[in-house]
Amino acid sequence: VVHERGFGGASVRDIVQAAGVPQGSFTNHFASKEAFGLEVIELYYEQARQMMAATLEDRSRSPLERLRAYVDASGCRAGTAARAGCLLGNFTMEAANSEAIRTRLAEIFAETRVVIAECLSEGMAAGEIDPTLDAEEVAGFIVASLQGATALGKVEIGAAPIDRFKHVLFGQVLRPAATG
Amino acid sequence: VVHERGFGGASVRDIVQAAGVPQGSFTNHFASKEAFGLEVIELYYEQARQMMAATLEDRSRSPLERLRAYVDASGCRAGTAARAGCLLGNFTMEAANSEAIRTRLAEIFAETRVVIAECLSEGMAAGEIDPTLDAEEVAGFIVASLQGATALGKVEIGAAPIDRFKHVLFGQVLRPAATG
Repeated sequence: VVHERGFGGASVRDIVQAAGVPQGSFTNHFASKEAFGLEVIELYYEQARQMMAATLEDRSRSPLERLRAYVDASGCRAGTAARAGCLLGNFTMEAANSEAIRTRLAEIFAETRVVIAECLSEGMAAGEIDPTLDAEEVAGFIVASLQGATALGKVEIGAAPIDRFKHVLFGQVLRPAATG
Repeated sequence: VVHERGFGGASVRDIVQAAGVPQGSFTNHFASKEAFGLEVIELYYEQARQMMAATLEDRSRSPLERLRAYVDASGCRAGTAARAGCLLGNFTMEAANSEAIRTRLAEIFAETRVVIAECLSEGMAAGEIDPTLDAEEVAGFIVASLQGATALGKVEIGAAPIDRFKHVLFGQVLRPAATG
């Protein structure tokens, strides 16, 4: 419900109705709607973390292959969520409403940047990726642009924004020296 | 109110309270909250359109200078809105809830892509921008990535995401041949 309607758009009544539980169950389990939102974020991030381990950190593949797998999997996650987009992105849009949620999202995006930057650095060392790049900066660019492409995918209903991002990222930004 | 809380998070009660008018005024003027949302989008887009005319379409400057001015102004717009981010981005996150809003946003983003692509094409013709690029594709990439950088700016509270995007866009993607 939160994923489809956005955190602000999903009322506690909608949430308990979809769960088929009385409203009292919600107030028994969560101190506030904000506390509930933070738990939703953790559940979603756990899944994202597993996907990152299976792609960015799968050292049986080359760094550039891992990055491609990560971007594909991110697009796929956005796709299976149909028109819902990225749950973290949905929360991001409402970050102004809760300092606790904003802080947690900032941590999650920072951790994601670190994992991507590590993969980029390995690709630069391996000669697969332009070695003059600033890995931290490009990692931050990837995190933000994936969010943007996922958001536009909600509006265009399709993979076109992610495909454009992939072409530009792998064709222009990373300019692979060896694998072309 | 819509800009700060998101469309779903802003109740009609919040909106009329902020406007200092009775709830009846809202129902007299707007057939639905969706109709109100569509009017908010038009107002905001009108401002964005003026900004695009003053930057992307200001032919007293070179195409690359116009693009830089556009990206700077976009970051600035996101900044003056403080932590609210891009209003269209906020609506994007809730596009799944209204087909009318989704359709209008898709049109607006498509129109924006056309204006950016025209500027890119002029820069490619002038030798300022890598002439092998697909202007339409890169324009779509710029629209989406600006949305993503603005969204992340809400979480990081700062210009860092926009700055990363600028460095990657102008340093890597457009790879200016002449102006380096």
